[in-house]
Amino acid sequence: MTGGFRKKIRQKNAENSGFGTNASGRFINKDGLPNVKRTGVNVFNRLSWYHTMLNLSSFRFISYLVIAYILINLVFAMIYYLIGVEHLTGIDKSDPLNEFIDVFFFSSQTFTTVGYGRIAPVGFLASLVATFEAFLGLLTFAIATGLFYGRFSRPRAYLRFSDIAVIAPFQESSALMFRLAPYKNNALTDADVIVSAAIEVIENGIAKSNFYRLNTQMSKINTLALNWTVVHKIDENSPFYGFSEEDFENTDIELIVQVRAFDEVFSNTVVQRSSYTTGEIIYGAKFVPMYYPNKENLSTVLDLDKINEYKKEKLPDLVANKE
Amino acid sequence: MTGGFRKKIRQKNAENSGFGTNASGRFINKDGLPNVKRTGVNVFNRLSWYHTMLNLSSFRFISYLVIAYILINLVFAMIYYLIGVEHLTGIDKSDPLNEFIDVFFFSSQTFTTVGYGRIAPVGFLASLVATFEAFLGLLTFAIATGLFYGRFSRPRAYLRFSDIAVIAPFQESSALMFRLAPYKNNALTDADVIVSAAIEVIENGIAKSNFYRLNTQMSKINTLALNWTVVHKIDENSPFYGFSEEDFENTDIELIVQVRAFDEVFSNTVVQRSSYTTGEIIYGAKFVPMYYPNKENLSTVLDLDKINEYKKEKLPDLVANKE
Amino acid sequence: MTGGFRKKIRQKNAENSGFGTNASGRFINKDGLPNVKRTGVNVFNRLSWYHTMLNLSSFRFISYLVIAYILINLVFAMIYYLIGVEHLTGIDKSDPLNEFIDVFFFSSQTFTTVGYGRIAPVGFLASLVATFEAFLGLLTFAIATGLFYGRFSRPRAYLRFSDIAVIAPFQESSALMFRLAPYKNNALTDADVIVSAAIEVIENGIAKSNFYRLNTQMSKINTLALNWTVVHKIDENSPFYGFSEEDFENTDIELIVQVRAFDEVFSNTVVQRSSYTTGEIIYGAKFVPMYYPNKENLSTVLDLDKINEYKKEKLPDLVANKE
Amino acid sequence: MTGGFRKKIRQKNAENSGFGTNASGRFINKDGLPNVKRTGVNVFNRLSWYHTMLNLSSFRFISYLVIAYILINLVFAMIYYLIGVEHLTGIDKSDPLNEFIDVFFFSSQTFTTVGYGRIAPVGFLASLVATFEAFLGLLTFAIATGLFYGRFSRPRAYLRFSDIAVIAPFQESSALMFRLAPYKNNALTDADVIVSAAIEVIENGIAKSNFYRLNTQMSKINTLALNWTVVHKIDENSPFYGFSEEDFENTDIELIVQVRAFDEVFSNTVVQRSSYTTGEIIYGAKFVPMYYPNKENLSTVLDLDKINEYKKEKLPDLVANKE
Repeated sequence: MTGGFRKKIRQKNAENSGFGTNASGRFINKDGLPNVKRTGVNVFNRLSWYHTMLNLSSFRFISYLVIAYILINLVFAMIYYLIGVEHLTGIDKSDPLNEFIDVFFFSSQTFTTVGYGRIAPVGFLASLVATFEAFLGLLTFAIATGLFYGRFSRPRAYLRFSDIAVIAPFQESSALMFRLAPYKNNALTDADVIVSAAIEVIENGIAKSNFYRLNTQMSKINTLALNWTVVHKIDENSPFYGFSEEDFENTDIELIVQVRAFDEVFSNTVVQRSSYTTGEIIYGAKFVPMYYPNKENLSTVLDLDKINEYKKEKLPDLVANKE
Repeated sequence: MTGGFRKKIRQKNAENSGFGTNASGRFINKDGLPNVKRTGVNVFNRLSWYHTMLNLSSFRFISYLVIAYILINLVFAMIYYLIGVEHLTGIDKSDPLNEFIDVFFFSSQTFTTVGYGRIAPVGFLASLVATFEAFLGLLTFAIATGLFYGRFSRPRAYLRFSDIAVIAPFQESSALMFRLAPYKNNALTDADVIVSAAIEVIENGIAKSNFYRLNTQMSKINTLALNWTVVHKIDENSPFYGFSEEDFENTDIELIVQVRAFDEVFSNTVVQRSSYTTGEIIYGAKFVPMYYPNKENLSTVLDLDKINEYKKEKLPDLVANKE
Repeated sequence: MTGGFRKKIRQKNAENSGFGTNASGRFINKDGLPNVKRTGVNVFNRLSWYHTMLNLSSFRFISYLVIAYILINLVFAMIYYLIGVEHLTGIDKSDPLNEFIDVFFFSSQTFTTVGYGRIAPVGFLASLVATFEAFLGLLTFAIATGLFYGRFSRPRAYLRFSDIAVIAPFQESSALMFRLAPYKNNALTDADVIVSAAIEVIENGIAKSNFYRLNTQMSKINTLALNWTVVHKIDENSPFYGFSEEDFENTDIELIVQVRAFDEVFSNTVVQRSSYTTGEIIYGAKFVPMYYPNKENLSTVLDLDKINEYKKEKLPDLVANKE
Repeated sequence: MTGGFRKKIRQKNAENSGFGTNASGRFINKDGLPNVKRTGVNVFNRLSWYHTMLNLSSFRFISYLVIAYILINLVFAMIYYLIGVEHLTGIDKSDPLNEFIDVFFFSSQTFTTVGYGRIAPVGFLASLVATFEAFLGLLTFAIATGLFYGRFSRPRAYLRFSDIAVIAPFQESSALMFRLAPYKNNALTDADVIVSAAIEVIENGIAKSNFYRLNTQMSKINTLALNWTVVHKIDENSPFYGFSEEDFENTDIELIVQVRAFDEVFSNTVVQRSSYTTGEIIYGAKFVPMYYPNKENLSTVLDLDKINEYKKEKLPDLVANKE
């Protein structure tokens, strides 16, 4: 975290961010999770495996399930093999490999409870192991059922944030703007946004981060169906009041954004967070509209590919405001 | 969106609707979903398949499950057939069709894990495929279990709105009224309603929509057991103040209604929305009561078929209010 | 709804109860559900079967499952029997009854996917029916899984209300009191209570119900671990101000109580409602304490059997307050 | 509950704790559950088995499942044995023990629906019992599925509280402080804390507990990613105003803490409670910081093992404040 020239900001540090003033690096990552590592305790207590399983990509989640399935069957195949193939009927005893293959398939038929019976246990030990493998199989699929449901019923906002924020002309002054839009067939209502800024300042020669709550022109909307351009006017109440293009480039700034809305399918409040750092704020630019009437003029079309489109636009002369 | 004569409305545009003033067509469809199409991104990212599956009708949902079941079995039947029927025991090899029929049924017996064993895999490849088919079957039914639960546990208000709103006489003036009633054996409490109006006005020759929050006589009720007639009095604070019958007919109006209540079985807040457009507002009419005591006078009967019943009723002379 | 002598109540009707003033009979039943019957629409649309299944007693729920299981197997047994037992292997063909018994068991082995294979389908039609029966079986158990989960995960307050309310001496005046206690091993926090009264009055010779919100001494408590005695002081702001014992006996009164709390296991708000009518309000009585320190003085014991225990107690002379 | 010397506290008892002033022993246990025993009703009605199953440790939960599985199979094995092994095919009839072992395994193969078919029912009675055992098995696993999901989807805060609270120097005066930190990979936002104190006082020679809400310096934070040190300044509004070290040691004090936050994976509010009693409050001590920048200065590291670390620190002289 470096930064040469630093502005004196007159507004007081009014935010309870939960981050100390001497925390380092980006506070909130682009995906909304805090940039904090935890040590101490042991790793198993530090991990909520349910949170982990829910945050995996679909591909990795399925892969883990398949790998677990193969491993479990290999372990049980080994056990049956050690017990002895003579305790299973219908095994192809032509050579050890075939024997192992057959006990592996017997294991899978037991674990999934398909139980064709072509191979079946006859002795006490093999039967006992099979008894527990079938039980384990059912519990495993009970857990898988829960995880699948947990994964797809997890309330999510499905919002796309613009990659960049802009400093645009606004009401004879300027404003910080970014935008967001719901990109899925979900219906969000009663949305609100909270925007905070962490700005690195130098006090007594020591760099520390101050936190500010930014006022926005509209902090609530009824229906989040089109895009929402969040507008923070840079006036006397803004910590960015009097910032020049150079200030925006040379100061370590992080905008922390939290959007909250009600999703009618989940009947639940959904929250999504994101952040913008110094390099992601473009000075002197304006977003291009991203929705328009459809051909028949009967409906509105929202073009999600335009979310990052902007054009350069000169800001009103703010020299007077500078120190 | 057409409209000849347009009133000048004195009230200021105070609503953050989330729709731009130049969005087109109906804003909220009758079923409460926004009338917006999305483009950009790709269609798979734009669809939440969970939202899609939850919004399907029961008939279509079951049909999709059945079709998926048949298709999956056809695919696996094909694979077993290509591997060779000699790797399965008990196949009727009288002719290729019978062979295919038998591998199809073997597939279904594996996928559902019923596994009679009359037909059973013996070779490596067939066993391997069966191993994965049984696994896939269990995961598929895990997903189906989750979807079934998601569908029927989804909190819903089960409200029926009147198809029409009326402009009725009210306290020596007039009021805009519509009504709604819970139609299922659910118990809703702490209900509230929010009514907004989008009214198309012409400013500088350009038609744009302004949004107004409408005051209602009672915006909260404790128990939503009978019908609820929502009443917006047309007084000086109403954007409809001074509207004549002609104005109501010639202005593009859209009422957007949101009802929110607590359902005690879901222990969750449920929300339902609807909308009324110009053609659905009847000037000079009054709703007919829809509940009455039962014969023994010990309980109240709510007749849901009467929800749209109204009789014409002359409004008090509002000429004085007109410009 | 009868009532001879009726008091004039000075307080204004300030409650939006959701019940009309001319609804009849008890408004809220003892179990908290509104006393309203619905007609119109058709019965299938008027029933939320999920709400119905969740409100069944455990015994009836299990009984319905067992009956459904037997009926489904009888229907499929019939179908297999009509297709012909020659399409199933392993059937005991000694007489038609034995045949039917065997196809019934084959059906159950298919529906549950146990599939021993002693009886197995061989022909096309029987195999096809079995294919769908196994599929139906899995979907049925998917639904049963969802219902079981829905039933036991349904957030409930598990509150026991005293069967009676009392008019007890309180702060040199009197107060209406009833009490409630959590009776299970759940932990409720942030509880609040809302008490309304419906009082039948005669206006212009017509009996109608007026609704009043009753003030309570404490309407919120942090931890609902012991019993909670809800106290409504009968002072000038109470609709019962100046009521004599005779008035309480002769007026149709209904107290509607709603308790709301946060359950930490469900992590959800739970709500429970109840009501008290004229006959359930005892004039001149006081509740007996229902908790006491345990022997070692290290913990508190709550005796739930005492919830209805009270002793008669003379009220302060309120004649002066009467009209 | 003992305590020699007792301070006179000027602040009024403003808290509705839900505990009576004469409840005894600790109010809230360290794990956040109230220290109350319930009697009356019968034990089955007093237990919510769902709450019980969700609060079990994983080890005990799995153990109960395994034990139930073995018991159920023993019961069914007994039934099949009594019906007679001649109604089952494939039984090893070499001696009664082997017969019992085989019916036990047949039972398990039926209960799990694995149904190899090597042992299969042939008579009416054995088939009927098997029909119901398979049905029972599926319902049992339906319930197990629900319990697994209920257990791991249960919203929990995963907060670690410091074992001790300290009285530390603060702004030229002193403050009561304790701290807490999230210890898992969950993301908590919008956290708030409520701190109450139960202080035993002697009024008219009788010891009773008074409840006070304690003001904290920051009662809300945006992101609960690092540790949170909750600070209650001991000023004129604090019930501890003027307390000496001796007072803190000799008075029965219990701090009741409730933290509430929003978890983004569960999309739900999570709550965790804890308490501190007299012996757990250290006078004249200061917490040691538990987070620091990582080596590259790009991220913050939170060391959870330091949560209880403090160093002794002399408090400013408070004699002037004493009575």
